[in-house]
Amino acid sequence: MRIALLRTPGGDRFARLDGPRAHGLDAAPWLGGRETVETWTWGEADLRCPVRPSKIVCIGRNYAAHARELGHDVPSEPLLFLKAPSSLAGPGDTVRLPPESSRVEHEAELAVVIGSRAKNVSPGGALAHVLGYSCACDVTARDLQRKDVQFTRSKSFDTFCPVGPWIETELDPAALEVKCRVDGHTRQDGSTRHMIFDVPTLVSFASHMMTLEPGDVILTGTPEGVGPLVAGASLEVEIGGIGVLEFGVGT
Amino acid sequence: MRIALLRTPGGDRFARLDGPRAHGLDAAPWLGGRETVETWTWGEADLRCPVRPSKIVCIGRNYAAHARELGHDVPSEPLLFLKAPSSLAGPGDTVRLPPESSRVEHEAELAVVIGSRAKNVSPGGALAHVLGYSCACDVTARDLQRKDVQFTRSKSFDTFCPVGPWIETELDPAALEVKCRVDGHTRQDGSTRHMIFDVPTLVSFASHMMTLEPGDVILTGTPEGVGPLVAGASLEVEIGGIGVLEFGVGT
Repeated sequence: MRIALLRTPGGDRFARLDGPRAHGLDAAPWLGGRETVETWTWGEADLRCPVRPSKIVCIGRNYAAHARELGHDVPSEPLLFLKAPSSLAGPGDTVRLPPESSRVEHEAELAVVIGSRAKNVSPGGALAHVLGYSCACDVTARDLQRKDVQFTRSKSFDTFCPVGPWIETELDPAALEVKCRVDGHTRQDGSTRHMIFDVPTLVSFASHMMTLEPGDVILTGTPEGVGPLVAGASLEVEIGGIGVLEFGVGT
Repeated sequence: MRIALLRTPGGDRFARLDGPRAHGLDAAPWLGGRETVETWTWGEADLRCPVRPSKIVCIGRNYAAHARELGHDVPSEPLLFLKAPSSLAGPGDTVRLPPESSRVEHEAELAVVIGSRAKNVSPGGALAHVLGYSCACDVTARDLQRKDVQFTRSKSFDTFCPVGPWIETELDPAALEVKCRVDGHTRQDGSTRHMIFDVPTLVSFASHMMTLEPGDVILTGTPEGVGPLVAGASLEVEIGGIGVLEFGVGT
């Protein structure tokens, strides 16, 4: 099932997508939203960022080849950090390059959307707390990341977390292609099967550290091939079984 | 004006405190909540965590003596990190020591509560976006902080962010005493006049990095004297002009 947040004549509404038709929900899907009788015909321009998390938990260096390309060892346990919810952006939005940085890079990632509260769950029980999956880009000001050591500033500028185009609820996250294209050229071409820590392990690990609330998002790390963004670029993050998240870059 | 979140017979409600009387608000104060005709007589046991932020922005090493006690240089610009909203706790709550850490410490801090959206504000205009102030403890698993380098895990366990007892809206943050007592013994005794970056500078700096939303919280750093917490301890964070935040420690 594909669930999107749509611009409708009555305001932003969560909806189940079924081909060109969208069936309205009466609440966010992670809050138990149920279908109403409302339907719309939707287009790409109607898609908005489909998540509204209380927190965005991110995993650093979760693909060995990416850890190596940045000169790091492979971690022995998941490396967690947070992105601010104010950094979220949606399909068709523009990532704004901040004047504080001269090197902003793309990191295409599988996003996990939590469906029910998770605290101290086991890897075996973790996927029962997952609502679905989306495409994301963990945009990173690489120069500030190296300077600050803490990842917060470099990854939490406004617009630095595009997510979309929708949430796909029926998907096995174990072996999905993760691609990033910049102006049509493939820059990242990985697979979630190369994750050091798989999705069940990440959800379990994070849930032992902090309660995961319905709607929370986990970004699961990026494969190798990260590179710089310049104003005017067009990006596509494509994940197998989900679709393509498109967004632009500006100043 | 003191604004608290109270347990009432009708559920949790924001209220203005006036001695033993509490005057109900119809919404959170950062959402423009106005007084209703409802009043209650309140007691300490009725106080809950008075903030519900979309993000908690924290400042590291903002007092020179504390930076030195941890072996760090004084930073040349504010060092930002995030605590998860799921780490919040309130007056009378218990900080739970996680099994992953053998060294959890207290860091008493002035909390700033944002009243209106702030983006790229100047230091001169920053305080106009502040609703008020509260007492907070940036509880930190020091061993995990050193191990992880990223501060996220060590500072975002559930219950690791007690805030309260209320929000004080009429206060000059420039020279407030910041104290922490453990079982009645004073462990931290500083003043916000020893901040390296003052409150207007911090709000301005953070607002250039990420949009600060109404209700967001900024923790402004801790003075020297941090130390370990053990199960059974009783803590008090006292800030001049605000009051005393009391909480316990358990496993």
